[in-house]
Amino acid sequence: MSSLRTPDPNPGWLSEYALEETRTRVPILYVEAVPARVDGNGQIEHVGVLLRGSATTAGQITRTLVSGRVLHGESIRDALLRNIEKDLGPAAFPRLPVSPVPFTVAEYFPLPGISPLHDPRQHAVALVYVVPVTGECNPRQDALELTWLTPKEALEPSLLADLEGGRGQLLKQALAWSGALI
Amino acid sequence: MSSLRTPDPNPGWLSEYALEETRTRVPILYVEAVPARVDGNGQIEHVGVLLRGSATTAGQITRTLVSGRVLHGESIRDALLRNIEKDLGPAAFPRLPVSPVPFTVAEYFPLPGISPLHDPRQHAVALVYVVPVTGECNPRQDALELTWLTPKEALEPSLLADLEGGRGQLLKQALAWSGALI
Amino acid sequence: MSSLRTPDPNPGWLSEYALEETRTRVPILYVEAVPARVDGNGQIEHVGVLLRGSATTAGQITRTLVSGRVLHGESIRDALLRNIEKDLGPAAFPRLPVSPVPFTVAEYFPLPGISPLHDPRQHAVALVYVVPVTGECNPRQDALELTWLTPKEALEPSLLADLEGGRGQLLKQALAWSGALI
Amino acid sequence: MSSLRTPDPNPGWLSEYALEETRTRVPILYVEAVPARVDGNGQIEHVGVLLRGSATTAGQITRTLVSGRVLHGESIRDALLRNIEKDLGPAAFPRLPVSPVPFTVAEYFPLPGISPLHDPRQHAVALVYVVPVTGECNPRQDALELTWLTPKEALEPSLLADLEGGRGQLLKQALAWSGALI
Repeated sequence: MSSLRTPDPNPGWLSEYALEETRTRVPILYVEAVPARVDGNGQIEHVGVLLRGSATTAGQITRTLVSGRVLHGESIRDALLRNIEKDLGPAAFPRLPVSPVPFTVAEYFPLPGISPLHDPRQHAVALVYVVPVTGECNPRQDALELTWLTPKEALEPSLLADLEGGRGQLLKQALAWSGALI
Repeated sequence: MSSLRTPDPNPGWLSEYALEETRTRVPILYVEAVPARVDGNGQIEHVGVLLRGSATTAGQITRTLVSGRVLHGESIRDALLRNIEKDLGPAAFPRLPVSPVPFTVAEYFPLPGISPLHDPRQHAVALVYVVPVTGECNPRQDALELTWLTPKEALEPSLLADLEGGRGQLLKQALAWSGALI
Repeated sequence: MSSLRTPDPNPGWLSEYALEETRTRVPILYVEAVPARVDGNGQIEHVGVLLRGSATTAGQITRTLVSGRVLHGESIRDALLRNIEKDLGPAAFPRLPVSPVPFTVAEYFPLPGISPLHDPRQHAVALVYVVPVTGECNPRQDALELTWLTPKEALEPSLLADLEGGRGQLLKQALAWSGALI
Repeated sequence: MSSLRTPDPNPGWLSEYALEETRTRVPILYVEAVPARVDGNGQIEHVGVLLRGSATTAGQITRTLVSGRVLHGESIRDALLRNIEKDLGPAAFPRLPVSPVPFTVAEYFPLPGISPLHDPRQHAVALVYVVPVTGECNPRQDALELTWLTPKEALEPSLLADLEGGRGQLLKQALAWSGALI
């Protein structure tokens, strides 16, 4: 257990074991982003949805949003920028929000049915933002592809149902907040 | 009075007389914007304040924000874009907000003392936004100059007191909403 | 035209003629409210929908929300309270929001198709709020009945389509903002 | 270390040791509330500030807001209600917000100077709400007293400076959001 006393050079990252253990103890803080292409009036023309190999269901392909933990010592803005770069690549040129107030706060519980959202790994709480991006998006890591959808396409029930952990709810909330026809 | 029955080719604009009359009848809807320079994390580095010859006090120089009426038939986004261009010029490259929800709703009454805000001409209600701009700002019309201030400079009580109609309140609210130290 | 020069004792109210004329000149400011019954945790259990004889279509029964003009000289909070009392009666005991920031800004244009919302009489802009009410609601005036619906019932497409002027959009936005499953 | 493998009957609560360890690993999620007395129009008349023996500075009396952790498995609304009851007693009759969106997100870092807010024990992220209370407030636990202040009194620089961890910033943000004169 000496590692607990010696300061970690990169304390935000945790070993698999430490993360697993921490997940049994406290809600884990996430940031999530709905990437968007907006017109000159700020209105959403397209939202981006990631197609990826799910971390939770071996071999299955699911749709999801930009999402990741806030690390120890990391600001919310830095976490948002880092996770957008992780999922959309370094040339996405995101326009981070001026205010730290999210359009919604998403609560994921490990048992299904408590809230619309569900994460079998943990109790997670996510601050969720719409983030316009103006550059080229090249998904990295385990994300296979980014699909741009019009609000109308994004609201198709079959697409919404495909979103991992119930995140179709977040996509609808994002569009409702933006004033798009929902 | 026949002009009232013939449709106006540009119905948003009103004659001096019709505007004057309308101001005695209903609250007039405005949009206002706090122009901002933001860093890569979305945080405000500078806010823009206009120095202008006031329409209400002959010869006096006052500070103000981007502000203008929503015309009949005009959308809020179009009104915001038009008034930003009117006050900051055509090369300001504003990033309009994704959501139509303002950070505050400002109420101006013709009699001072009813609210922090005051407009001797009329009862006005303004939807107020922070709008990051990335281009060159060249104030036009009656605006003489745009000054960029750090949040700390903008919060100087003497500067806030200079803002026309009590708009120092709006500047403080904008910075509070953005998470800047107020 | 002398009435324009003599101050009106109740200047907020306009003659039919003056209101008609004003509607051709400027967007008219409204407040709207989604009445709600909430549980001890603040979560919406039911939303209230009014059944009324429409002002715009003779004899037809439509569903709508609490809605009314902001009068000249009237604050938004006073307008909200007055219109809730007008539509729900004096014993509704509404809990007005602490912040004047609406959950959405609704734009109604006289021509259909410009926005999801439509008002044949005028260009109107409404600040829309969710207002919990704790007392007895007894619709007055032209409202025939108030129906309480669970979020699930309120989201039925056939019900949403019944809401006057496209206000099904506002009901969905209200529920999205509240975190209800949409 | 066997306790880590056996499920805890009340997993939200952690031993001193486990909490200490967790605080070195991830940001800890909090909810905070500014208690308020509001008038019939929803406007803040008074905000409540707690006087308490600080957990971090032996013997010193500090001012603070309602604040507490979100426990593992606990919803944000339940955490807010529990912490309000912990700090204000069981007869405060809080009116929890309809939306889970906070008026600000507060970031506390263990090293001073990174953000306006500071918590020597940990990296904490708080969702902050204004919560009207209508009943009797009887502070329990380590809170000695609740003081009700008008917005004007609350904005006194000497009072704001007394608030623990830089929370004077949160009080100003709360009042800015409510539309009070700041």
